[in-house]
Parts: sequence; structure tokens; C-alpha cells
Amino acid sequence: MPRISATKQAILAAALELGALHGISGTTMDEVAERAGVAKGSVYYNFASKDGLFGELLTSGVSSLSRTLREARLSATGFASIEAMVAGMLTLIADNRALAKLMAAEIFRTDRAWQETMVSLRREALSEIEAALAPLVPRDTSESTRLLMAGGIFGAVLMGGLEWLLFSPGTPAAEVSAALLFTFSGKLDAGSPSAA
Amino acid sequence: MPRISATKQAILAAALELGALHGISGTTMDEVAERAGVAKGSVYYNFASKDGLFGELLTSGVSSLSRTLREARLSATGFASIEAMVAGMLTLIADNRALAKLMAAEIFRTDRAWQETMVSLRREALSEIEAALAPLVPRDTSESTRLLMAGGIFGAVLMGGLEWLLFSPGTPAAEVSAALLFTFSGKLDAGSPSAA
Repeated sequence: MPRISATKQAILAAALELGALHGISGTTMDEVAERAGVAKGSVYYNFASKDGLFGELLTSGVSSLSRTLREARLSATGFASIEAMVAGMLTLIADNRALAKLMAAEIFRTDRAWQETMVSLRREALSEIEAALAPLVPRDTSESTRLLMAGGIFGAVLMGGLEWLLFSPGTPAAEVSAALLFTFSGKLDAGSPSAA
Repeated sequence: MPRISATKQAILAAALELGALHGISGTTMDEVAERAGVAKGSVYYNFASKDGLFGELLTSGVSSLSRTLREARLSATGFASIEAMVAGMLTLIADNRALAKLMAAEIFRTDRAWQETMVSLRREALSEIEAALAPLVPRDTSESTRLLMAGGIFGAVLMGGLEWLLFSPGTPAAEVSAALLFTFSGKLDAGSPSAA
């Protein structure tokens, strides 16, 4: 990772907090400077524009999502790779709650300056899930169908994870992971459930 | 449903289009009036504020989601009720793409005037999924765990559905539904897949 200055880091952190709370359109560079405790000139010295600032936040967020997913995928095989990905994503969301909220809000926006970059980075992240799915689905499943499944799994973990952090933060991460994985385990469709 | 005037309908439709494109903070009442082809006074005659306008859009959207989910749940039993809910939600998303985008962006915002209403309405919608899950999960599963599972299923369909509409709109709805349900069917965890 490239080294970034303490000032730049403070600006990124302030932008993230404000963006997660008020949205990107509802956040101004003045507010970012104030929250970061730096002069406005310093914000513009580090980022040419608000678009540049939030674009960098979001693209680096999706890149670290992809890295987490790839590591999880390579750490196991078969359905265990899906389990590792769900657990890895949940940890990432819990450790970066503001970023997860911002990503949930931004992921389907189509009017942003960084749209092209985001579409290709999101595709990269989904491709990691898709690669883990490939050996688990019928051989004639098309890549676009596998990507839809990957999008569904990603959505389940993102929404389930945010639901957890906002509405039942006392639940241990392992229980959340188990609850989400239960829905992918086939036990829902297994007829009468066992008393676990 | 209460009858609403053609003007009010035009304002709501314009607000929805603009909000889905530029976000709520990025949309002004002036722009809503212009897009709806009505005078600005007419917008304020119908809605006291932008918050009131978007609050009405979102709460009525979540209410119709709950209705759809309840009807689907009552139309079948066992895992088939989950299948009916996924299909019903996908149809709703496809028929109301702008609303689905807006809801995805707003669902975890915690600084909105309508926040309280949205939290309780979202809970109502998730409770429908939770009620369908109850007979399918181990008897000692807590309500909060079932709600997390419900949030995951909701997230999978919302994100999978938007992924579909934005990136592979040519895929028939039934295939999308089948792809998402496949991940909940347990076939992922079934070892070597059959050639479907």
C-alpha cells in the first residue's frame, strides 16, 4: 500500500464519517476540513475535488473487499470457500462500518464521476465469489448467472451485516456468520428442521 | 389505497426519477417541479417539504413491499413460501426499478426525518420473511437470528435484482429467480453438482 500522510488520512477518515452519515451530496469540503481539523486549502491540496476524494475512498474500499474475498477463496475449497468468504466479508464490514454504509448507498448509483472505475472494481469483487461458486454449480451455468448468484451472496452479507451492526450489535460475529450461512446451507429446503 | 391527484402523482414520479439518479440530497424541489411540469407552488401545496415528499415515497414503497411479501408468504407453505417471496420481490423490483435503487441507497441511512417510520416499516417487511423462515429453522433459533437471516435473504434479492436490471437486463426474470434460489437450495453444499 502506498504511504499516505497523516493529514490525508485525517481527511479521508472525516469524509468517510460524514459521507456515511449525510451521504456524499450532503457533505461539503468545508465540513470535511472542519471535521478533519485541517485548513480547507489542505483538503484541496490533497484532493482536487469532492468527487476525487470520495472516488478514492470508495475505490480503495472495493479493492480491499476484493483482496479479502480472494484470500478467503484461496484459503479453502468447495463450500468451505463460501463460508470463508462470508466470514471474511462480515469481519471487514464490522471493522469498517462507515465504509460499508457508504458502499451500500453508492453501489447502484450511476451518475458518479467514478462510476466506470466502480463498475469494474465491483465486477472484480463479484468475480472472486463467482470463482468460488463455479465448482459448486451445474457445469452448464453461464458466467452471467454465476455473477447474479455472486451478487445475491454479496447482497445477503452486506445487508445482513449492516442489519446486525445497526439493530443487533450484541450478537457475536460467529453467530451472524452462521445465521447467514444457514440460509445457503440447504437446510431451509430440507423439510422438517432438526433441533440444532 | 387513497386516491391521489394527477398532479401529486406527477410530483411523486418526478421525485422518484431524480432521487434514484442523483440521490435525495442531490435533488431540489425546483428540479422536481420542473421535471413534473408543475409550478413550484404546486409542489409545496402537496408536500410541506422535500423530506415530506421523499418520506412519503419511501414509506409507501416499503409498505407495498410488505404487502407483496405477505401475499407471497400466504400463497404457499414450507420452502415454497421462500420461493414465492423471492419471485414476488424480483417482480416488484423489476416493476419499480427507480424505487428499488432509492431504497437500496436509503435503507441504512440514519439521519433522515423519516427514520423512525422507515425502521418500523422495514422491520414489518423483514418480519414477513422471518415468519416464513420460522418453520424452516431449528426450533431454538432466536427471533433476532431469524431477522438476520431475513435481512440476508432480502439483501440477496435486492442486490441480485439490481445487478440483474443494471448489468444483465436481457436475462428472463424466472432465470434470475432460479439463480438466487439456487444459492438458498442447499445445492451449493451438496458436494459434486449434477449437470442440471
